[in-house]
Amino acid sequence: MSNLSPQVHAALEALLPNRISTQRDLLDQHGQDESFHAPCSPDVVVYPVTNEEVSQIVQLCAQTRTPLIPFGAGTSLEGHIAATQGGICMDMSQMGQILEINSDDLDCRVQAGVTRKQLNAALRHQGQFFPVDPGADATLGGMASTRASGTNAVRYGTMKDNVLGLTVVTPDGKIIRTGSRARKSAAGYDLTRLFCGAEGTLGIITEVQLRCYGLPEAHAVGVCSFAAIDAAVQTVIEVIQSGISVARVELLDAAQMQAINQYSHLDYPAQPTLFFEFHGTSASVVEQSERVAELVQENHGTEFTWAVEQEAQNKLWQARHDAYYAARALRPGASGWPTDVCVPISRLADCIQETQRDLVEFDLLAPIVGHVGDGNFHLLLLVDVDNPAELEIAKIVNDRLIKRALSMGGTCTGEHGIGYGKLAYMELEHGAAVAVMASIKRAIDPLNIMNPGKMIPDNFLKDDS
Amino acid sequence: MSNLSPQVHAALEALLPNRISTQRDLLDQHGQDESFHAPCSPDVVVYPVTNEEVSQIVQLCAQTRTPLIPFGAGTSLEGHIAATQGGICMDMSQMGQILEINSDDLDCRVQAGVTRKQLNAALRHQGQFFPVDPGADATLGGMASTRASGTNAVRYGTMKDNVLGLTVVTPDGKIIRTGSRARKSAAGYDLTRLFCGAEGTLGIITEVQLRCYGLPEAHAVGVCSFAAIDAAVQTVIEVIQSGISVARVELLDAAQMQAINQYSHLDYPAQPTLFFEFHGTSASVVEQSERVAELVQENHGTEFTWAVEQEAQNKLWQARHDAYYAARALRPGASGWPTDVCVPISRLADCIQETQRDLVEFDLLAPIVGHVGDGNFHLLLLVDVDNPAELEIAKIVNDRLIKRALSMGGTCTGEHGIGYGKLAYMELEHGAAVAVMASIKRAIDPLNIMNPGKMIPDNFLKDDS
Repeated sequence: MSNLSPQVHAALEALLPNRISTQRDLLDQHGQDESFHAPCSPDVVVYPVTNEEVSQIVQLCAQTRTPLIPFGAGTSLEGHIAATQGGICMDMSQMGQILEINSDDLDCRVQAGVTRKQLNAALRHQGQFFPVDPGADATLGGMASTRASGTNAVRYGTMKDNVLGLTVVTPDGKIIRTGSRARKSAAGYDLTRLFCGAEGTLGIITEVQLRCYGLPEAHAVGVCSFAAIDAAVQTVIEVIQSGISVARVELLDAAQMQAINQYSHLDYPAQPTLFFEFHGTSASVVEQSERVAELVQENHGTEFTWAVEQEAQNKLWQARHDAYYAARALRPGASGWPTDVCVPISRLADCIQETQRDLVEFDLLAPIVGHVGDGNFHLLLLVDVDNPAELEIAKIVNDRLIKRALSMGGTCTGEHGIGYGKLAYMELEHGAAVAVMASIKRAIDPLNIMNPGKMIPDNFLKDDS
Repeated sequence: MSNLSPQVHAALEALLPNRISTQRDLLDQHGQDESFHAPCSPDVVVYPVTNEEVSQIVQLCAQTRTPLIPFGAGTSLEGHIAATQGGICMDMSQMGQILEINSDDLDCRVQAGVTRKQLNAALRHQGQFFPVDPGADATLGGMASTRASGTNAVRYGTMKDNVLGLTVVTPDGKIIRTGSRARKSAAGYDLTRLFCGAEGTLGIITEVQLRCYGLPEAHAVGVCSFAAIDAAVQTVIEVIQSGISVARVELLDAAQMQAINQYSHLDYPAQPTLFFEFHGTSASVVEQSERVAELVQENHGTEFTWAVEQEAQNKLWQARHDAYYAARALRPGASGWPTDVCVPISRLADCIQETQRDLVEFDLLAPIVGHVGDGNFHLLLLVDVDNPAELEIAKIVNDRLIKRALSMGGTCTGEHGIGYGKLAYMELEHGAAVAVMASIKRAIDPLNIMNPGKMIPDNFLKDDS
């Protein structure tokens, strides 16, 4: 069944006896992320446990020009893990050790397969946490590879800001360390941030050094709703511009509120809603929440409903994290297509309004959620991918959305990445800079074995433009 | 006098009539930074004013294989601007326009030759500021190129965290834009952070898009001193570990306090001293300063002396920024050699103590200043560079300091960079990762015309290791 040569298969068997599989359902599961993009199964799945094993597999791939695709939790959204050219899927789930927690320095080092929830369970004992929280319980290696973000980014930044260093196996099989445990450095090119967000196209991230944070002394979670989405967005713009350091501010439109009420058994008004979280000392949390409440009131929002108990707060944020699944439950059988633009905050209201007009015009069901403090929002397009006309309409709406964001000085993806789903937008966003990216790809991965067909459009790799 | 061919000189004259010079004193001034490193004058200095002119000069350099060295304010400290292979110095000072201030989005875009003080003068009218503040009034292009930092980094980050995008002329003469005005993006390799800190070895930064911040509603500046430096450092460690978000915390040892008292006409006790600044709302500034005062007291520091008026605060911070010049005034005629390591904060006290033992052992005069909230500190070695024995001792002390920092998980440079002064430490710090950096350098600048002889050791460029 496999397209791999028997020699490559035999070599893998010798390297990782009992940690290799060609079971059909397992291959299929490893070629399909959580998006609507067409899956492509790899020829084999391997489960390394050490840096050295990863290096040996990479060297085998280099010798035999076999594509190699790193796999974390499989929760990407732009076809990042699809084996579009076949090859080896390297499942990192067995590299699941937390290697160091340096609580005095607020940093830690983990193997790539540790998930964010596993890390937070370990950090909690130290009174610390790691803030980056994409919707899924993704692996930290995957989150680093995709420059992941989430609800806390408005205060704590994205993976770009919180990865201090990496261990990477480069396409020639070398094991390198980037960064250091120092908080800053001016020594050399910033390889940490080059590999962070490279989607496995430049090497395999095997270990991640992360910045941690003390659990806030106090925190508060409040929910308020608005008659119209414009007022909610305007409130957020004013909060950000006034410099109030909110920990989280999430927008959910009326359709999304209805979806999560149903899915998560909540009973919020089915209106455009903001979820806020405040971190700090007791006094500063009170001060922040009072200032935000004033801005909410000026924009005719409702009074805050406060989630006081930890359990109620967890339930609320889990509901937010489940937004994608909740939206999909609105139309059983349909595929979910989460769009992902990010614009300067001053353009956010315009961008959302113009997009909502498109949804009405094209008659699409697409709840909106957003990490609006960053200017980042998602439509959760619910699409019958077997209906070509409907799929075509969804593509048009996404295309218009991306071009709108770019024309506003924004980006085609705030946090989901390029994979193969957004290859077509790389040149539109970056222009001649894509050729510089391609020259880096060719220099570091001259055989194009590392997650080929992702991030850098093929025409830039073939031609020396 | 010039080593440039008459053809190259004639081509430059044609491109930039009246904005080219071969005056001896001007050449010498452009080959000498503020360090003790041996100066190397360029063959010619040019003053472009547009991206297109920069591109034309770069293309000329590529055609004629002429070294090209970008020059900001000339305040680097590791020989970054020395024309070690001759060539063209590109002085960016006439690219001094502030192109956009987007106060609603808290961002701006400037030409590379704008200095940090010029930008802050313009931002003040909008109630905003740009926090990164190296000692000198450096240009923002130079600060981006060297990944500069300063006293505010503990709260606001370094240039790495505050550059949103760049306009770069690459070594083939293309003008590219990196990043976007969005607060985050997962679209493609992070070229912004690759060029930020590349010291001009990958291209010429011509424009810088920066993140700005609202001026804090309230701020307070306090000074306290300690009988011993250990207690001061321990206080800082406890402040950082307790998560108090200080805006600035600077350490100055007894020798440095004596130097700035003399140089800046101040009368602080000549004891190890911490300068703190707190930003926030009035209530939070009070809360932060009370908590820090408690930690100071527990560590037997003095009561805070508060600089209440803006003028007193400015005087205090200007004195801190002048620390290097103040230290040099302690020994007129001697050269200043500022060292620059950064270690995990838990190791800071050990690192400083062991280093102080070296200073005693080798009988060197070297005031200490540090951005200690980041784990970054400098010895200001005062050395008679014409005395070979003394220079040798200074080299030994610096070498021991760097190796000590690396053994503690730190870096050989927190903020000053590599230039040619720290080339020897690149492999020691980064190991096999230097080969990856070299492959990027070769890919982007295959003719090695961009600030050659800096950042990447020559042996990595010649050999395909």
